[in-house]
Amino acid sequence: MTEPLGPTGKPAIVTGGTRGLRVIITGAGGFVGKAVARDLARHHDVVGIDRAPFTCDGIAPIIGDLCDAQVLQSAFSSGCDAVIHLATIPGGAAEADPALARQVNIDSTMTLIDAAAQAGTRPRFVFASSIAVLGDPLPAQVDDATPVAPTLLYGAHKAMIETWIATQTRRGAISGLSLRLPGIIARPRGPSGMKSAFMSDVFHALVARRPIVLPVSPEATMWLMSLRRVARNLVHALGIEATGAFTLPAIRTSMRDLVDAIADAAQVDAALATHMPDPGLESAFGRLPPLSTPFATALGFAHDGSLAELVASALATLA
Amino acid sequence: MTEPLGPTGKPAIVTGGTRGLRVIITGAGGFVGKAVARDLARHHDVVGIDRAPFTCDGIAPIIGDLCDAQVLQSAFSSGCDAVIHLATIPGGAAEADPALARQVNIDSTMTLIDAAAQAGTRPRFVFASSIAVLGDPLPAQVDDATPVAPTLLYGAHKAMIETWIATQTRRGAISGLSLRLPGIIARPRGPSGMKSAFMSDVFHALVARRPIVLPVSPEATMWLMSLRRVARNLVHALGIEATGAFTLPAIRTSMRDLVDAIADAAQVDAALATHMPDPGLESAFGRLPPLSTPFATALGFAHDGSLAELVASALATLA
Repeated sequence: MTEPLGPTGKPAIVTGGTRGLRVIITGAGGFVGKAVARDLARHHDVVGIDRAPFTCDGIAPIIGDLCDAQVLQSAFSSGCDAVIHLATIPGGAAEADPALARQVNIDSTMTLIDAAAQAGTRPRFVFASSIAVLGDPLPAQVDDATPVAPTLLYGAHKAMIETWIATQTRRGAISGLSLRLPGIIARPRGPSGMKSAFMSDVFHALVARRPIVLPVSPEATMWLMSLRRVARNLVHALGIEATGAFTLPAIRTSMRDLVDAIADAAQVDAALATHMPDPGLESAFGRLPPLSTPFATALGFAHDGSLAELVASALATLA
Repeated sequence: MTEPLGPTGKPAIVTGGTRGLRVIITGAGGFVGKAVARDLARHHDVVGIDRAPFTCDGIAPIIGDLCDAQVLQSAFSSGCDAVIHLATIPGGAAEADPALARQVNIDSTMTLIDAAAQAGTRPRFVFASSIAVLGDPLPAQVDDATPVAPTLLYGAHKAMIETWIATQTRRGAISGLSLRLPGIIARPRGPSGMKSAFMSDVFHALVARRPIVLPVSPEATMWLMSLRRVARNLVHALGIEATGAFTLPAIRTSMRDLVDAIADAAQVDAALATHMPDPGLESAFGRLPPLSTPFATALGFAHDGSLAELVASALATLA
């Protein structure tokens, strides 16, 4: 068990210089990456790296692996004011291919941090960490003091990189901030390598009026954030000086309430969703207790406001 | 800042099966490694790995790098009941060659843990971590709740592996224990890659009646343990079931008291030692506050007893 790093910089100071930065985004062709890149491209010089070809308005794409030195050289050749590091091998995919997960989540990430430190002058480094760094089972109430105790390989990788970023920040090489993201909805259909894919699948099924059998019970509780909101939080992280590692706020909902809210918003029958709980998924993703995030809240990070707003935002970006 | 992992297993249960184990020791040709290997070879089947050729009575030596798959295959080919992982690129050497340090301290160590898990049935894995995982500056009193906040690359590597070992232990792959070692004396003369080499150099100089200029003040305070004692503690770790990560007990002494104790024991003039403090070394190694280690003490780990006993033990093994 390790304690959250907490913010170690000054809180919530919005810097004047948040226009015209050279920002490198990894995983820029992904679900979250594209949304962040699109937001940032309005005011910044954005380079997006992804291993799969992608296009995004106003972004210079670099297609290749983060472990390829030439990819990093291209990305950092014109300097670096900030990095938003989203590329990862997530939970389920990491369990299926631990060697690849270690290469991307540890090796390439450490190399990326080195490259950023060398290309810039104490560049901002925003790391998409995960609530997977927290333990299983969780305490009755999670807050900024809840110990880090991952059980997933993915969660351990994220926790290890949080430590590395905190050290490199302490050494003055970067200005690092690790944000622990909750479940982000609604991801596109298809294999994401995420064990938590059902949280998005329920949106696609209900909107299409298809029945869906959910692998958690109606009582299962989750922490969720919409795509738009997570993009806004990640962009916000560039404009403040705080460093450290902590959990972002999230809407906590039961699966029953989520299904009802989607059914209400999409004018469909909630009974399309039925339940056949998988004990492993229920335990890992369906027992999330009340969450208190004073660090993040004080720094201006926010959740979607309400379950209805979360669902409306998720439905608006349904791909 | 991360909190010490603490012991998560049962305390101080000496297992019956501490004879005839197949034990793999990394860094077995090193200063600590040889002492541990010699102790263990009396009752166990010991395989020692080191990158430099070495001999040690009763040990099957494997010479090669831990990042060489064939080396690991040879070491684990006949199974594995326990590993004592000592091989590392220490503080000063890691700062001088960060890429090599990452390869040995992170990559090879993670591969070693995988190999151990595959070769054995939840094998014991004892990891020589370091007080370098703790922060600089330290609080007025260090105990088992002191946050992890390394500034050295070496300290960050050790903290990251503590997290990995705790996760793999939680998953049942290994039975891991990370022990944070204090300064170990007296190391052999010559370059060790350790920034703290002066703690051993003072023994060699005084015994040889040579003057020595110490890079810390007489008031500098250190945490120290003798070679014999650390070997005993590492062997003890094999015979208990506790898991987690915590700091070992140590004798806290000022440099003035240490010099006087060596001079007394060796019947030489303490004035041979003079001081020209290096602010970096004084800050990193000479401001160690009082240390309380209830976790380790409850589990049967011990320091040398007194400064006089520490010095006598260090002098007895002076190479």
